[in-house]
Amino acid sequence: MKLWDKGFSTDKKIDHFTVGNDRELDLLLAKYDVIASRAHAKMLGEIGLITPKETQDLVRELNTIAARIEKGTFTIENSFEDMHSKIEYMLTLSLGDTGKKIHTARSRNDQVLVAMHLYLKDELTEIKSMTKSLFNLLLVKAQEHKDVMLPGYTHLQIAMPSSFGLWFSAYAESLIDDLYFIEAAYKVADQNPLGSAAGYGSSFAIDRRFTTKEMGFSTLKYNVVAAQMSRGKVEKATAFGIANIAATLSKMAMDICLYMSQNFNFISFPDELTTGSSIMPHKKNPDVFELVRGKCNKLQSIPNQLTLIINNLPSGYHRDLQLVKEIIIPAIQDMKACLEILTFSLKEIKVNNDILEDPKYDYLFSVDTLNELVQNGMPFRDAYKKMGQEINEGTFKPKRDIHHTHEGSLGNLCLKEINDKMKEI
Amino acid sequence: MKLWDKGFSTDKKIDHFTVGNDRELDLLLAKYDVIASRAHAKMLGEIGLITPKETQDLVRELNTIAARIEKGTFTIENSFEDMHSKIEYMLTLSLGDTGKKIHTARSRNDQVLVAMHLYLKDELTEIKSMTKSLFNLLLVKAQEHKDVMLPGYTHLQIAMPSSFGLWFSAYAESLIDDLYFIEAAYKVADQNPLGSAAGYGSSFAIDRRFTTKEMGFSTLKYNVVAAQMSRGKVEKATAFGIANIAATLSKMAMDICLYMSQNFNFISFPDELTTGSSIMPHKKNPDVFELVRGKCNKLQSIPNQLTLIINNLPSGYHRDLQLVKEIIIPAIQDMKACLEILTFSLKEIKVNNDILEDPKYDYLFSVDTLNELVQNGMPFRDAYKKMGQEINEGTFKPKRDIHHTHEGSLGNLCLKEINDKMKEI
Amino acid sequence: MKLWDKGFSTDKKIDHFTVGNDRELDLLLAKYDVIASRAHAKMLGEIGLITPKETQDLVRELNTIAARIEKGTFTIENSFEDMHSKIEYMLTLSLGDTGKKIHTARSRNDQVLVAMHLYLKDELTEIKSMTKSLFNLLLVKAQEHKDVMLPGYTHLQIAMPSSFGLWFSAYAESLIDDLYFIEAAYKVADQNPLGSAAGYGSSFAIDRRFTTKEMGFSTLKYNVVAAQMSRGKVEKATAFGIANIAATLSKMAMDICLYMSQNFNFISFPDELTTGSSIMPHKKNPDVFELVRGKCNKLQSIPNQLTLIINNLPSGYHRDLQLVKEIIIPAIQDMKACLEILTFSLKEIKVNNDILEDPKYDYLFSVDTLNELVQNGMPFRDAYKKMGQEINEGTFKPKRDIHHTHEGSLGNLCLKEINDKMKEI
Amino acid sequence: MKLWDKGFSTDKKIDHFTVGNDRELDLLLAKYDVIASRAHAKMLGEIGLITPKETQDLVRELNTIAARIEKGTFTIENSFEDMHSKIEYMLTLSLGDTGKKIHTARSRNDQVLVAMHLYLKDELTEIKSMTKSLFNLLLVKAQEHKDVMLPGYTHLQIAMPSSFGLWFSAYAESLIDDLYFIEAAYKVADQNPLGSAAGYGSSFAIDRRFTTKEMGFSTLKYNVVAAQMSRGKVEKATAFGIANIAATLSKMAMDICLYMSQNFNFISFPDELTTGSSIMPHKKNPDVFELVRGKCNKLQSIPNQLTLIINNLPSGYHRDLQLVKEIIIPAIQDMKACLEILTFSLKEIKVNNDILEDPKYDYLFSVDTLNELVQNGMPFRDAYKKMGQEINEGTFKPKRDIHHTHEGSLGNLCLKEINDKMKEI
Repeated sequence: MKLWDKGFSTDKKIDHFTVGNDRELDLLLAKYDVIASRAHAKMLGEIGLITPKETQDLVRELNTIAARIEKGTFTIENSFEDMHSKIEYMLTLSLGDTGKKIHTARSRNDQVLVAMHLYLKDELTEIKSMTKSLFNLLLVKAQEHKDVMLPGYTHLQIAMPSSFGLWFSAYAESLIDDLYFIEAAYKVADQNPLGSAAGYGSSFAIDRRFTTKEMGFSTLKYNVVAAQMSRGKVEKATAFGIANIAATLSKMAMDICLYMSQNFNFISFPDELTTGSSIMPHKKNPDVFELVRGKCNKLQSIPNQLTLIINNLPSGYHRDLQLVKEIIIPAIQDMKACLEILTFSLKEIKVNNDILEDPKYDYLFSVDTLNELVQNGMPFRDAYKKMGQEINEGTFKPKRDIHHTHEGSLGNLCLKEINDKMKEI
Repeated sequence: MKLWDKGFSTDKKIDHFTVGNDRELDLLLAKYDVIASRAHAKMLGEIGLITPKETQDLVRELNTIAARIEKGTFTIENSFEDMHSKIEYMLTLSLGDTGKKIHTARSRNDQVLVAMHLYLKDELTEIKSMTKSLFNLLLVKAQEHKDVMLPGYTHLQIAMPSSFGLWFSAYAESLIDDLYFIEAAYKVADQNPLGSAAGYGSSFAIDRRFTTKEMGFSTLKYNVVAAQMSRGKVEKATAFGIANIAATLSKMAMDICLYMSQNFNFISFPDELTTGSSIMPHKKNPDVFELVRGKCNKLQSIPNQLTLIINNLPSGYHRDLQLVKEIIIPAIQDMKACLEILTFSLKEIKVNNDILEDPKYDYLFSVDTLNELVQNGMPFRDAYKKMGQEINEGTFKPKRDIHHTHEGSLGNLCLKEINDKMKEI
Repeated sequence: MKLWDKGFSTDKKIDHFTVGNDRELDLLLAKYDVIASRAHAKMLGEIGLITPKETQDLVRELNTIAARIEKGTFTIENSFEDMHSKIEYMLTLSLGDTGKKIHTARSRNDQVLVAMHLYLKDELTEIKSMTKSLFNLLLVKAQEHKDVMLPGYTHLQIAMPSSFGLWFSAYAESLIDDLYFIEAAYKVADQNPLGSAAGYGSSFAIDRRFTTKEMGFSTLKYNVVAAQMSRGKVEKATAFGIANIAATLSKMAMDICLYMSQNFNFISFPDELTTGSSIMPHKKNPDVFELVRGKCNKLQSIPNQLTLIINNLPSGYHRDLQLVKEIIIPAIQDMKACLEILTFSLKEIKVNNDILEDPKYDYLFSVDTLNELVQNGMPFRDAYKKMGQEINEGTFKPKRDIHHTHEGSLGNLCLKEINDKMKEI
Repeated sequence: MKLWDKGFSTDKKIDHFTVGNDRELDLLLAKYDVIASRAHAKMLGEIGLITPKETQDLVRELNTIAARIEKGTFTIENSFEDMHSKIEYMLTLSLGDTGKKIHTARSRNDQVLVAMHLYLKDELTEIKSMTKSLFNLLLVKAQEHKDVMLPGYTHLQIAMPSSFGLWFSAYAESLIDDLYFIEAAYKVADQNPLGSAAGYGSSFAIDRRFTTKEMGFSTLKYNVVAAQMSRGKVEKATAFGIANIAATLSKMAMDICLYMSQNFNFISFPDELTTGSSIMPHKKNPDVFELVRGKCNKLQSIPNQLTLIINNLPSGYHRDLQLVKEIIIPAIQDMKACLEILTFSLKEIKVNNDILEDPKYDYLFSVDTLNELVQNGMPFRDAYKKMGQEINEGTFKPKRDIHHTHEGSLGNLCLKEINDKMKEI
């Protein structure tokens, strides 16, 4: 059964090509279609397009469907094009003509739009919350290992002293920036598009403020053409938000893979978190972190993928927009999986406490020695030349006692201030 | 002269390859390096690393340089690697050893970082302001042409009645979403990174809160490693913001090019805003809008371009990061040019008032006719079937009087509400 | 059971995260793993690492597995990490220790690499063949409708006379270019990587020329490090090839969607190939072509997606590379689906024969009129000015008889020459 | 002066926005416009559209212009929109009406198309030649250092023995694959588009086979609509070719930066090829290789950038296509700069001869030890378990004598075979 069935059967090839794998993804969205349908039914009652009894019946049946979805017993059979068809079918089965009335003053475009907005609001909220969990863990680890020194690199060359305190909390503070974009995406999603119908509004006197309140949106996407333009756009906004977090996670995973190499040997993980090799028995590979990196790099490609689909389409609905669903939903699941596994794994990280004892790290302290010369009055450029000569002549003796005191430095991590900044989100 | 000159001359090929076209772009950034240097000099005085007299001298000379930049008489000769070298050279020329002291407790990485943050804050502010100007114009045009009807398309098929009121204000409301991302980018930029030095902080007891206040940043990027990680990240944040506006402008330009085609003939522009053809004398081509579309599509590729450069680099500075400057600065200039030219051109748009008189648009009204049947009590699916039959049999007579009254519809554009939403940004 | 099982059980979360959905995709690759395993077994026999009896046993059992795969009865249970584990398990089950010997002198990396190369060779061959079918159909349609006129557009403005003959065969000739890239990708795939082991070769005296011949590769990827670097690279090469075809199909689909709009009304399709609307009974939407466009646009994002995953990884295997499989395989399936459905649908295209009778197309003929002036001796620029004046003054009278005779023009489509060019591939 | 000047002056803002920086890039293309104009002039003479005297005059003046371009004295003043306008102006200045006749039977679109095809053919040939130079150097270096051992990594974990012989020649063999795509791009470029005019051919009886032969194209792009579709497409084909080489260079640069790190210390370069730090006097940074990596990563973004501009445009010329010129030309220059600098720098590479003496590399030899057990008759899986136990118990003693003999392995690099494969291109 298709909503637009007009009596002629489209060719099966076409049918297969156009329906795609919507049904599977729709299981995740069904909950939100029910929420929106319930709000729509109440509104139809409110403005008198259906009777109070009809409203009551529709709301009751929708609650029954919601319960089924909750329990996992809701299914979309192959005979249904999508969940919208299935839900309307269920309503009509129980309520007859009343069931059909749910579709008054809305279109399928409307339904997809509003369900996606509600879905994205929930997922963005969960992503924010999972990111905060990771953030919290990173601050805990920063505090825990704040005095464990690490070489700092520039150009992958040994450069200046750093610490695990700095390293963990750098990624924490970086995640705050990423959440600004999650918040921006949330604002885009948090506007009720219902009432756009096929993209040009309805001649019924629907009450969009009522449904806005009923579904818990902060505001309306007023203009019905703008509301329709949200298709693709709200998913892309979400993808931009995800891409930022993914970039931070990917970078951290790259560091981890490098630091686990025997050439660095800065950190390790319990056997349960590494994997072996079919041919090299001594290997304990950082597969989890490589997959976090790889998946997060894939996630960074999603905005461009969505852009390519949406771009240069004139205004108004096009069927191409159907494809964004099957891109954004798996991306969201991947993002959450990466956040979860990274938080899960980082708990078990073991840091090597005596890294800097290796003499190859002596030069780390050259800058601080140079600064001391400057503090004793030598102009920077002159001190710099003197140091260069000593190093070239092999007469340089590093001073290994570190006193970094300014905000955000080795000796003053400002974890509280970073935590306060996150709290504002 | 190079800051890192150590007595051996690098090969000229290398020199040419590594310096690139930094000098030209640096002219735009020089103003911000001076602002940051002035704040840094005052702070050095404040914490006693230089004398009050030295502070005074440095600030005075920096003000002189600022004035030159303002007047356009500041230049960066080929003998200087970049503006940082030139500015330090000028200070040393006038102040001798005092000039050299400006580089105490900071590194070039620091300078680039903080200048870029200050520059991006200014440019994001200007982009926001230009976007608001376009937004205002769109609302004016929506009001002006609110009763001029337009066919609404779905699948590029004639679908439902729309209007210029809806069309103009749809793009206006859409721009609000885009500004949420500009705001997110601004928050990323509005954190003082100065004091990160080469990415691991300094052993000098610098006062980063002082410079934060002095330069007008809202907060610090506390963690010095996180501050260094801003290189590339803050530019990418800006690029994400730009990409969203660009997507909206590109879509509008696509509509305009389509609507100017003789097959639509919905709008036109004065001769001054169109261009001719070398071989077809009757043509008046929408080159401006095609270039807005093309440039905005190019702008949408910038986030991915930056991602490719930054991605999978371990933490710490890498020279690759130098390349982001020559990507983001021209992108910002292009964004502003597109906003300016679109605002300039749209002022002159002429809309065709009698579009819907063409009988091919009759079917636009089928949905409203159907809705009337429903409002008179027929279930939607039955009304839908009846209408389908009438259309197939050629007996369908459209009702052309439109009464859309709900929020955001043809008859109720909610321009005030849309304007209020923008005001919150 | 995992190949690298060493006695400690990795955490289940990790297991779930790392295994992903490999098993499903592996069903498509299993055939090729068997082909490669058979060649490997024969080679091991050839060089005396296993006995003739062992070779015979392994080949026989692999043939049995191949038959199961062919019949669709081969399965990969959840207890197996991938098809490689399952196939080795089956061999060991029937042959005991002999089964285990198949893994001598190779690694799983080897197996994945060679199976992917064999798989891609087959798929690229099929894509080439399907592209040629579409090409042939386009030439047939060009011939069939060679005299049906069409307006030619520049800047979406009515410009010069064109024809369905030109339009169909333009896309045909364009596909030839795309196949140059499919051929390049095929050359990358058609090099035997087997013997690379974990990426650094083997201390066994394996005979790689033997397996090259046995599996039908044209040559070896000699260097074992280069062979390993093919992971990701051969998939990206394929994705580049696909992206080119996809761009051509997407562009043609865009034309089709535009030409089906009532504002153009150049072509139509039978009801079976269009879809309806839930709210506008008169609509017959080009969903198939919109989905071809959308899917082909998504396909154009694949090279970048793969690049993001592979990029900036140092040489040597990384687990990230596992992710390319789940990107390239669905992309190939999508490419084939688009080629199939477009070929299937275009067979049914109906072209409108009297498009140019509409007076809005009169100006199409201005250039030819101008050319006549030139052929009668007037300099081009002067003729151009004269025509411009006539058009401005409304005195222009088009000459509608067209005589384009040069190669590739309206009157001389060169279909045979285009066909000959394709034959060279 | 503009070719399409019709008497009304377009607004200056518009003028500035639409002309852009075409003039600068046009200096590189001017040579090819002259070649095409000369072929066109001869053809016009051949078919009698101009007199033999006119042909002679045009060819002579074009030769004069060609000489100026060669000498670097050709300029495009701001009063000219582009080089096409300037060249036509020069012809008209010397030849009067005869000069104007060069534009008979062609359009500016034609001119841009054919000049770009000729330009790309030359640049692709040069890129191929530079790639071959790098390939040759890599083979020389592989031969020179064939016995210097290197640890081979998987997952960035120490894995198996490798060598500089393998490492250098891996990148050489990989470049062969990249040239398959350069060849594909060349085939796309090597088809004469001249005669397409504005994209729909000409009513003049031009002889396109004549110009094809005259300009040295292998064949025609027959269909005039297909010829016009080459705009954007031929540049994208080139970008695909470049992206492949860039990926290989970027990966090699990543290896180099890693191997120069003190944590690896596998290679070094003379001081002239490294750069210093403003704050860390001991640093010798691999800026050249970081910039090769960064620029090559940027180059990998070009195909997507071009796709975004071209995509979803219906057939026929659009002004957007003008923008591809300013993307592809700098990309080609960057590609050549990277090839040149890498070839220049790699000549000076110094390899560390005793890397494997460090005991952390002992485990490299575990696989070969395991293979020996297998060769002595133990089933692989059993040998694997035994080895695993020894390693866990710390009783493993590596055998450091390596005998890899198969094709493409440590002991048998097959440099001649790799060189032969390249020769076939």
